[in-house]
Amino acid sequence: VKQIEESEAHAGMTQTLEAPVQVSERVDYDSPYLTVRKVVKAMPSGDHVTFYLRDEADVAVCLPVTDDGHLILVKEYRHGPGRELLEIPGGFVDAEEEVSNGAAREVREETGYEGRIVHLGSTWISAYSTARKHIFMMRSARQTSRPQPAPSDHFQVVKVKQEQFGQLVRSGELTDLDAALLCLRALGEAA
Amino acid sequence: VKQIEESEAHAGMTQTLEAPVQVSERVDYDSPYLTVRKVVKAMPSGDHVTFYLRDEADVAVCLPVTDDGHLILVKEYRHGPGRELLEIPGGFVDAEEEVSNGAAREVREETGYEGRIVHLGSTWISAYSTARKHIFMMRSARQTSRPQPAPSDHFQVVKVKQEQFGQLVRSGELTDLDAALLCLRALGEAA
Repeated sequence: VKQIEESEAHAGMTQTLEAPVQVSERVDYDSPYLTVRKVVKAMPSGDHVTFYLRDEADVAVCLPVTDDGHLILVKEYRHGPGRELLEIPGGFVDAEEEVSNGAAREVREETGYEGRIVHLGSTWISAYSTARKHIFMMRSARQTSRPQPAPSDHFQVVKVKQEQFGQLVRSGELTDLDAALLCLRALGEAA
Repeated sequence: VKQIEESEAHAGMTQTLEAPVQVSERVDYDSPYLTVRKVVKAMPSGDHVTFYLRDEADVAVCLPVTDDGHLILVKEYRHGPGRELLEIPGGFVDAEEEVSNGAAREVREETGYEGRIVHLGSTWISAYSTARKHIFMMRSARQTSRPQPAPSDHFQVVKVKQEQFGQLVRSGELTDLDAALLCLRALGEAA
């Protein structure tokens, strides 16, 4: 580890670390939504280190915004947190599906809204997952059908004003804070 | 599922859904960083649905900012994405540890910096995890020691200007976009 001085900072942003070398790999766990690979790597230090790497589907989240300035959220029972949360619509992207189509499909299934899809940004799910999260807004959203919940879904569609959404972001009770912050910025409002 | 009209929106934010009832639970996977519980629940619809819920440690991330306006990042090889990324320092919070102490400890270990810790926000890791992510900045950060990498760590400390960080956020090559956006907002800059 080397402290890079200020004058080297830009070079530091592009300079490449020596890559760890994979020694072995096996599937340690496999379930419908998650595969864990146990991977041993030889680090540049010479140490052998075991990593548990997660393969899972990419995710798309998409906040519908109506022309009269309302946001469409879903109140869902979230089984990890063990409580109901107000959330931005979203879900797994199918393997063959264009990401923006996945975002539009999730919104349609969960809320019945359709509109113009705008990509706001993307991020890695975590340092140990191969999955990405893609973040969208749906502009000029309007309800064209009834929601089509899956058996595992349990939610209500909730229409909120922008200031209520800002409160929600500050509450810490979201699973997609990254998406919420990008949407607030796109809406031109600090939460 | 019921579409809530605009006039009911505020009530919708506080009204409670009928909770699913747990039918069975067993540990489906256990590894050093992750336990998966296979949980069957009776949904209010009457359907029995299987969920794979993840127990993992809470995470703290913390961006050090120096008084001369530089940000301290770590360039790390990220084994999920399979490439090196410039990241905000952070890691798992120990079970007995105060969250803000965990943030300060991670920064100290990864970068050798110390300073004043400020909590910016928190979020759930995902809808199927019990873990939370806590997001901090370290104000008036200065380097007081050398980094102390663990054998599994492979990184360089990189000092960047705020505008470089904005570019990084837009690149989509971060695992903590939520933290980056909260930090940018605290720094008074849109990325």
